[in-house]
Amino acid sequence: MTTTAPLSDVELAQLDAYWRAANYLSVGQIYLLDNPLLRQPLRPEHVKPRLLGHWGTTPGLNLLYAHLNRVIRHRDSDVVFITGPGHGGPGLVANTYLEGTYSEVYTGIGEDVDGLRKLFRQFSFPGGIPSHVAAETPGSIHEGGELGYALVHAFGAAFDNPDLVVAAVVGDGEAETGPLAASWHSNKFLDPVRDGAVLPILHLNGYKIANPTVLARIPQQELESLFTGYGYLPITVAGDDPANVHQQLAAALDDAFDQIGAIQRAARTDGETGRPVWPMIILRTPKGWTGPAEVDGVKVEGTWRSHQVPLSETRTNPDHLAALERWLRSYRPDELFDENGGLRSDLRALAPQGYRRMGANPHANGGVLLRDLDLPPIQDYAVEVGRPAAESAEATRVLGTFLRDVIARNSDNFRLMGPDETASNRLSAVFDATDKAWLADVSPDDEHLAPGGRVMEVLSEHLCQGWLEGYLLTGRHGLFSCYEAFVHIVDSMLNQHAKWLSSSARLDWRRPVASLNYLLTSHVWRQDHNGASHQDPGFIDHVANKRPEVVRVYLPPDANTLLSVADHCLRSRQYVNVIVAGKQPALTYLTMDEAIAHCTRGAGIWEWASSTTGEPDVVLACAGDIPTLETLAAADILRRRLPDLGVRVVNVVDIMRLQPESEHPHGLSDRDFDALFTTDKPIIFAYHGYPWLIHRLTYRHTNHDQLHVRGFKERGTTTTPFDMVMLNDLDRFHLVMDVIDRVPGLGSSAAVLRQEMVDARLAAKHYTREYGEDDPAITGWTWERDI
Amino acid sequence: MTTTAPLSDVELAQLDAYWRAANYLSVGQIYLLDNPLLRQPLRPEHVKPRLLGHWGTTPGLNLLYAHLNRVIRHRDSDVVFITGPGHGGPGLVANTYLEGTYSEVYTGIGEDVDGLRKLFRQFSFPGGIPSHVAAETPGSIHEGGELGYALVHAFGAAFDNPDLVVAAVVGDGEAETGPLAASWHSNKFLDPVRDGAVLPILHLNGYKIANPTVLARIPQQELESLFTGYGYLPITVAGDDPANVHQQLAAALDDAFDQIGAIQRAARTDGETGRPVWPMIILRTPKGWTGPAEVDGVKVEGTWRSHQVPLSETRTNPDHLAALERWLRSYRPDELFDENGGLRSDLRALAPQGYRRMGANPHANGGVLLRDLDLPPIQDYAVEVGRPAAESAEATRVLGTFLRDVIARNSDNFRLMGPDETASNRLSAVFDATDKAWLADVSPDDEHLAPGGRVMEVLSEHLCQGWLEGYLLTGRHGLFSCYEAFVHIVDSMLNQHAKWLSSSARLDWRRPVASLNYLLTSHVWRQDHNGASHQDPGFIDHVANKRPEVVRVYLPPDANTLLSVADHCLRSRQYVNVIVAGKQPALTYLTMDEAIAHCTRGAGIWEWASSTTGEPDVVLACAGDIPTLETLAAADILRRRLPDLGVRVVNVVDIMRLQPESEHPHGLSDRDFDALFTTDKPIIFAYHGYPWLIHRLTYRHTNHDQLHVRGFKERGTTTTPFDMVMLNDLDRFHLVMDVIDRVPGLGSSAAVLRQEMVDARLAAKHYTREYGEDDPAITGWTWERDI
Repeated sequence: MTTTAPLSDVELAQLDAYWRAANYLSVGQIYLLDNPLLRQPLRPEHVKPRLLGHWGTTPGLNLLYAHLNRVIRHRDSDVVFITGPGHGGPGLVANTYLEGTYSEVYTGIGEDVDGLRKLFRQFSFPGGIPSHVAAETPGSIHEGGELGYALVHAFGAAFDNPDLVVAAVVGDGEAETGPLAASWHSNKFLDPVRDGAVLPILHLNGYKIANPTVLARIPQQELESLFTGYGYLPITVAGDDPANVHQQLAAALDDAFDQIGAIQRAARTDGETGRPVWPMIILRTPKGWTGPAEVDGVKVEGTWRSHQVPLSETRTNPDHLAALERWLRSYRPDELFDENGGLRSDLRALAPQGYRRMGANPHANGGVLLRDLDLPPIQDYAVEVGRPAAESAEATRVLGTFLRDVIARNSDNFRLMGPDETASNRLSAVFDATDKAWLADVSPDDEHLAPGGRVMEVLSEHLCQGWLEGYLLTGRHGLFSCYEAFVHIVDSMLNQHAKWLSSSARLDWRRPVASLNYLLTSHVWRQDHNGASHQDPGFIDHVANKRPEVVRVYLPPDANTLLSVADHCLRSRQYVNVIVAGKQPALTYLTMDEAIAHCTRGAGIWEWASSTTGEPDVVLACAGDIPTLETLAAADILRRRLPDLGVRVVNVVDIMRLQPESEHPHGLSDRDFDALFTTDKPIIFAYHGYPWLIHRLTYRHTNHDQLHVRGFKERGTTTTPFDMVMLNDLDRFHLVMDVIDRVPGLGSSAAVLRQEMVDARLAAKHYTREYGEDDPAITGWTWERDI
Repeated sequence: MTTTAPLSDVELAQLDAYWRAANYLSVGQIYLLDNPLLRQPLRPEHVKPRLLGHWGTTPGLNLLYAHLNRVIRHRDSDVVFITGPGHGGPGLVANTYLEGTYSEVYTGIGEDVDGLRKLFRQFSFPGGIPSHVAAETPGSIHEGGELGYALVHAFGAAFDNPDLVVAAVVGDGEAETGPLAASWHSNKFLDPVRDGAVLPILHLNGYKIANPTVLARIPQQELESLFTGYGYLPITVAGDDPANVHQQLAAALDDAFDQIGAIQRAARTDGETGRPVWPMIILRTPKGWTGPAEVDGVKVEGTWRSHQVPLSETRTNPDHLAALERWLRSYRPDELFDENGGLRSDLRALAPQGYRRMGANPHANGGVLLRDLDLPPIQDYAVEVGRPAAESAEATRVLGTFLRDVIARNSDNFRLMGPDETASNRLSAVFDATDKAWLADVSPDDEHLAPGGRVMEVLSEHLCQGWLEGYLLTGRHGLFSCYEAFVHIVDSMLNQHAKWLSSSARLDWRRPVASLNYLLTSHVWRQDHNGASHQDPGFIDHVANKRPEVVRVYLPPDANTLLSVADHCLRSRQYVNVIVAGKQPALTYLTMDEAIAHCTRGAGIWEWASSTTGEPDVVLACAGDIPTLETLAAADILRRRLPDLGVRVVNVVDIMRLQPESEHPHGLSDRDFDALFTTDKPIIFAYHGYPWLIHRLTYRHTNHDQLHVRGFKERGTTTTPFDMVMLNDLDRFHLVMDVIDRVPGLGSSAAVLRQEMVDARLAAKHYTREYGEDDPAITGWTWERDI
């Protein structure tokens, strides 16, 4: 425990007064509809009928904010505040109000009595603001409702911001989550030269909703050993006497900022290399500190019972109303606010000025700092496509060459995240331009590891996602490349990010940020050596449940379409873009110009693969690289064997096109949909993922009754690629059978062909089981016709 | 590092030979189609055409398995082996084959040359076995493809198995994941008296797919500090000389098992209380140990390059073929296997016998140990329901009384998991029967914390899910109660568990295990004080993508139906059951007998709420507590205001009923579906979650074109309950408007009513914004009619 006393009596008194002001405003937001400065005795009608908020964590947040203000003023530091216990929303609203930011952003809420009344009333009130720290809260990039992502967001914010200090408050409840437990290791990926600093502050108030927390209930020595093991130097502040804690915390923050400065000087000026041991703070103070000690004879302050509202039924229980009034008056509001309801001027001077105020820090409204990426022309990376479906390329390998130059041209503004899979996903060309960020020990055998690497690899999808979210929300760009099945690990993080994007889009003061871009490869159809555990295409379904204004899903069928889609996504703003693409050698279909035109339309007829240019007898639709391959092979069989059958091939890159225009901004009009899919002909749709998603997107369209979808039906194991499509009836032979079963009046040659298809499936299965690989006659298929 | 040498020269030689045998069989599985004992020179056609497997982690797994065999034999220990690096599948197959289990389970694969040939051929081969440790692997409860859950599964297996030691191998890649990083803290929840022991073995082979691992690249002191901080006593074994490592590892395991015994004796015999410091082992050996040191001049052994197949193109590259033969012969197979291909008898004697073999341990095939729960009659917990929709109950609070007695009657066989939410979810009655498991420090203010508690609370959905999975797969029962929105955190774990259930159901030697039961409460419609971050009903959609034979989703509308559904789920086997229920005071509709009948049907007409018993003009369907309330209130308005309109109310508890019977075992026949929903009348369906799920389930049914679904459209914030339903057009007034808009020919009184509904919505919105709560005239609605 720190023993120096850096605060003079005056400073101490002022800091404490500032803290009391924040606590007062926090309690006021939770409880009061009116009488904001208690200039009248408190009456039931001054109190909200529904008490909805979280007090327990709030005094600790207020304490930290006030002390960080002091450090910022003393050192002119650039600090962003991340509120892990985001349900302590009233605290952050109170502080951004006290520093003046709130009234600048929300001009209707002034720094006077009327403003205070509105500030209180709106909190967690219908038509008002959320109870948590949210997009609506100035200075925040982090919601904190779900818990677990405070520290990983903090590191994301710090990357490539060398002058920034990100103070990350981690609740001790949140610290029990998996993502948070892994996040501490982010210090192995933070470069003291090019990146800023993260100051983790573990707020040990001891309790969650209804239980003590694990980290509060292990011996102090064990706790310190844990953080030493995570690679930090822990500084502990503990107590329940405000004056004493103020002195300790001021000293601890001075110490931490001194250490941060020393580490950065050593690395930047003295050329010291290696991983620094960064400081972190353990703050052990009571939950619900300064709130009611007891309520109805039961201990509240310093227990889990202070988690939400310590006093309930304050409208109907006079004792509780009186206790509330005592509680509020214990902060001595008359000493804190002037006649008009403004903060006392000497207290106001304790907050930093302008952009140094944490509520006004532009990094926390990243869109204002966002610069467009400098993107090379995708034409430079295009693969030559002479005839469609004749030559092969590895789509992600081609993309890798583009990303290499994106990285080279945007050396402080773009990062590529991936859980140990950049090479496996065949993006290795990027290592011609950069390395993988790595601050831990190195060995002579290592390749492409360096502190300043622009590729972030760690075997944690949570860290990849969280780092990228923090990086994007502070105004930069990135791409997360992930095995398709395991991106479900971050389903819930995606939910929260999508909600943030939706909410922030409704706030005119928040500027658009770069989209969150996923590249899902190593996908369901090509898990030859991993099998069932690696087969799940359901992330698309998950994303499709989010608000249509923020989600986009692309399934480019080949290398050039992948380039076009990636280029589009990297230019976009405020979306979640999901790109699903293959990494294996696969046929190419479109020249770069054709690819751009096709991707711009999002869905279109491939006339070269169709056997009619007029109204067809059947539509073969496809989305995804493997379904496209099987569809084309089926079309090839049909044109050769049933030359009179009018087959139209439709390829869909942007599956949101399939929705009605009323449901999604990319949705096709009924007319356009009908023009592609007809109003009455059978549609055999070969889709990359779960087949019912296509039904869910299209059920309102005229021809939905004729739609028959093949996709992944959760049938898979370790087997060959063609066996995988056969297991799910997505193979070319089955697609031909589907056509024959659906188109009336095809006659005897179709019946013969159908039987041949059945036999072909059996033969393919037999070949595979006999030889352990697919029949080369199948895998070697190309489109033979000259066009 | 341990320095004693517990192995005699003979023991050492035998152990090493056993390890060589396992390594040989592992390499054989990855590479060989034929010539299994190399009794001929290796030729290209002996090698598989596709080389699909993971070598890197395998020698370490084989080493540990052989050494654990020794410990089991010496001590007659009951040990389950959890393979965190599950992609090291060949190692586990090899070991269960060597100990004889494999040939007992798969009688076609005998312990002879022919059996070896089949064993090798089937691995990662079409029609054969998966490349990972999987349900198909005897002795496993853990797949390990996704990575991150080894340790949490191990703890789940150890709970209530006092004589069991669960050896959990944690890969150093896996150790970077969030769930694994949090899992170490499971030692704060393990009772040394009633639970068994978990021996974590961190397998530091240094590399992932393409990178070094974090834990392998921090100083040894930091690493030990980390595990000391996690509350363990780390024992390190390190080296690359087999003889030396054998001695170290034997000593380390002896030490660890001695410590485990001492801890258990102290707690069980000497009455020692408090949390023990359990041992854990750090095993630092080369990745791909004993494999090719170099390939084509590049270092392979001891690097990430040994992760999958160190030698590729062995059919076409003679140098690689020769290197493979040298590698295989380096294990000296002629010394290990007899003439017939059986393991040398003195080596065979190194494996334990019967159920002590880790491949044959019954805990790893939990169904064989599963006992039915002793369930009290749900009638004893029923709430009285005089008139429907007239009285209120809190459904989960009622369920809590039932669960209290389930816990009391099944004191070693059932656990309730929840992330700090048992009380918040109003299941507190359980604390009359038990406590929350807690081994960390306690304070006098704590309530219901004890080492032997049957309720497991930690703020990590990953740990709750993983503990429960481990507990179920070893033959016990449980329920996971979770906030609805945050259960998405375990989406990916659910995927893997559902896949395990599907796979194991196809293996006749695996017996059915108890279902994984979720109670999702604190649901999307009642997040009054948390708002948007806590609003997501999409887990149902996620689950509905899994194979129909393993998933069930129930939306009981009131207290008695919740009891009936819970009773059913707790009796079921081999499913994932999702129950969504409310915790707030809500109207009750059905008596217990009616509830049982209704839940058994899964969907049915509520005649008391319908205005016709014949063919209706419109069907009001509902699923979920809040949609049911709004639907009934809408029906009430309609019967009073449009008495000539024939309204049928259909309530759906089991939403899988909505699928065609061809798609799901619970699906209704076309006739039954049409009997409920008509073939041509408008259906206004009020649904708990995302509306399109109902379309996805019903699109094949005749009357789908007339189906109009209201549900959650991602519109939500911190507001009142009725405002939430209004934001999503799910409120009673809007449902009435939907009816009027869809039923033709209703005339002017309907037009008047429609306008009143528009006005009622505006008035309700106004009331809420003015007073901060819902209009009591709305929230106080009950069904007035006597029936």
